[in-house]
Amino acid sequence: MQVEIITIGNELLIGQVIDTNSAWMGQALNDEGFDVTRITSIQDTAKVISEALNEAFKRSDIVLMTGGLGPTKDDITKETLAAYFKSKLVFNQSAYDNMAAYLKGRVNGINKLNEGQAYVPECCEVIDNPVGTAPVMWFNHQGKVLVSMPGVPIEMKTAMTKAVVPRLKALFSTGHIIHKTIQVFNIPEAILAEQLEEWEAGIPDYISLAYLPNPGKVRLRLTAKTLDDKQAEKDLTALTEALYEIIGENIYAEEDKPINELLADVLKQNQKTIAVAESCTGGNIGHQITSLSGSSAYFRGGIIAYDNEIKANVLKVNKADLELKGAVSQPVVEQMALAVKQLMTTDYAIATSGIAGPDGGTEEKPVGTVWIAIAGDFGVKSQCFNFGKLRARNIQRSTEAGMLMLLKKIKEQG
Amino acid sequence: MQVEIITIGNELLIGQVIDTNSAWMGQALNDEGFDVTRITSIQDTAKVISEALNEAFKRSDIVLMTGGLGPTKDDITKETLAAYFKSKLVFNQSAYDNMAAYLKGRVNGINKLNEGQAYVPECCEVIDNPVGTAPVMWFNHQGKVLVSMPGVPIEMKTAMTKAVVPRLKALFSTGHIIHKTIQVFNIPEAILAEQLEEWEAGIPDYISLAYLPNPGKVRLRLTAKTLDDKQAEKDLTALTEALYEIIGENIYAEEDKPINELLADVLKQNQKTIAVAESCTGGNIGHQITSLSGSSAYFRGGIIAYDNEIKANVLKVNKADLELKGAVSQPVVEQMALAVKQLMTTDYAIATSGIAGPDGGTEEKPVGTVWIAIAGDFGVKSQCFNFGKLRARNIQRSTEAGMLMLLKKIKEQG
Repeated sequence: MQVEIITIGNELLIGQVIDTNSAWMGQALNDEGFDVTRITSIQDTAKVISEALNEAFKRSDIVLMTGGLGPTKDDITKETLAAYFKSKLVFNQSAYDNMAAYLKGRVNGINKLNEGQAYVPECCEVIDNPVGTAPVMWFNHQGKVLVSMPGVPIEMKTAMTKAVVPRLKALFSTGHIIHKTIQVFNIPEAILAEQLEEWEAGIPDYISLAYLPNPGKVRLRLTAKTLDDKQAEKDLTALTEALYEIIGENIYAEEDKPINELLADVLKQNQKTIAVAESCTGGNIGHQITSLSGSSAYFRGGIIAYDNEIKANVLKVNKADLELKGAVSQPVVEQMALAVKQLMTTDYAIATSGIAGPDGGTEEKPVGTVWIAIAGDFGVKSQCFNFGKLRARNIQRSTEAGMLMLLKKIKEQG
Repeated sequence: MQVEIITIGNELLIGQVIDTNSAWMGQALNDEGFDVTRITSIQDTAKVISEALNEAFKRSDIVLMTGGLGPTKDDITKETLAAYFKSKLVFNQSAYDNMAAYLKGRVNGINKLNEGQAYVPECCEVIDNPVGTAPVMWFNHQGKVLVSMPGVPIEMKTAMTKAVVPRLKALFSTGHIIHKTIQVFNIPEAILAEQLEEWEAGIPDYISLAYLPNPGKVRLRLTAKTLDDKQAEKDLTALTEALYEIIGENIYAEEDKPINELLADVLKQNQKTIAVAESCTGGNIGHQITSLSGSSAYFRGGIIAYDNEIKANVLKVNKADLELKGAVSQPVVEQMALAVKQLMTTDYAIATSGIAGPDGGTEEKPVGTVWIAIAGDFGVKSQCFNFGKLRARNIQRSTEAGMLMLLKKIKEQG
């Protein structure tokens, strides 16, 4: 069943606000068997809104709209929809009660702008919005559905979860959709596709494959549209197993989670702790780890050893190694990992030292050269990478590669 | 001059990837006097792509397209565009050379799928893509322009900055545009707008004002569309001066630079060095500082003291203070700043300790409570903030507030 999303607001078009609503809606709808086939972001003028709505109804039975429902005069969605459906704005008691309940205790009294929010097109049905003052409006139109929701993410999400998706499911029959995402590391997309040519040819017709590349990794997404869940699960499992035969070394996850979460999972599961010693990543591994709530259970801390003196004085890296081998070298990064593990008395440590660029490269060690070490009960392991010329990408890839090296090692050990 | 953006890829529609490209493009184009009037995200089928292109060309003279240019067979943009323009795919030496240069040192040899990326519609002009293997393609079509770019953000951004925007500016006249951005800290948008009501009323008609709110700060962007640069500069200066009269205390920059760059500027200018001691920010201040190239000139390193034992053992914070006042307290954060400054022998230090949430709050210190200290030749200064309930926002705001406190102090000292 096809769904289109229309998002309204100049702030989206001039890049003042990133539209995260549509992706959230796309995922929520997709999980329930609806296909979002188009997302359109438009300016808030009556003409543009009406045209976009006409086009969407030509293609799809369900149109979900967000934005343009605020109390100020630049928000014209309601007036436009009233005109579009040849209806008129009328006072709606349930919209008023909802707004009054929301504002109670927040502001003194209801001003005229807010009161205006209780007026809705006569032809619509008002859906509860317990987390804001704007009405959520459901329109039935010649067997098709339009839902107009606020653009404030929490209001849209609440309406979608509590009312819109359940109602759509009751009205429209959807097939069943099963996704399986396999994350692959350290094979460029083109080489991966070549290696998987035969495997791809064996994918049943009802399952589709997408390559989702990011720097350093590719997510392979298999999507089964089916009425026979059991068969689909069987086929997806067989495809995954066949994939391990070809590129098992490079698969690091069978779920669509970022590396910091995957690492957090194994650390929590095994009740292990970790510390970091960061040179070229400058604190980003620590930042990625601590961006997850609950990280204090396994993350103890780290040393950002950007300057060589910090490597020598705080991490006690051998000065002769720093001078003779250089900061970006195997002995230095291994000593960093071992030192921080000991200093912070953790089970594991990750250390990085590299040339993030754009300056500082030499012929022997060009920009992008990064040494990464992990330490643990297995001793210390290290690897040299080259992540290319871009500073931001170098930092990001070094961060992910460090976490991934440790994740793989822990998983290997069982 | 109107521009439409078309983004191609099922991953956008099912919410697997959030479209951040369009917002970036919208802002970059808007800065140069182009108006993005519509953003459309569509599935990667030939029929849908051709239809979307037809519709966009009916409305606009410039269409920018991203996505669907990977080496794998689910990427069909090139074939579709060749058919659309009644052209055919031909081998392009410059696309090949670009790809070969990019792949050199990364992979051994160029495989058949990558080689396929060097084939482009005969009617297009290939624009250099120094940061990836996909071609950037420029089409002239009945006085209108289509540019097809890869969906990988860094590739799109590089092409836009280096080639697409400059070429569009040369081809289409957009009038002269002068932007002036004033950054304001620590006043919520609604209160700021109230305070500036009279000032706003005095803005000449040819200058427009936009409030660009971010957590903790508002950027006020004045945009003059003019033929008389001199008058515009004069008016913008007068408006800025008038702004200082009203909210001078809260203005921290007259240029649109992020705080880490502003701090880097004053540190380099005064040849000073800095270190960080991070608890709740978990390495993010270090990460923000080191995301700038050349940061090794002023950043020496830091301690991520996430666990209290690290605060006590590595930073030598008084154990009684940790126990009696708690980690999130003035004495602890001040000791952290002074200790890391001494340990790393720097001129300045920033320290953070807070409750990022969602757990760990108490009645006395709710989630969002953050103590921040700065240390320098002025001794140590600290301040307590509350940044609310959201973890990611707490970390971001603590990071920016710490850098800002130091930036203001250094500027005060002259």
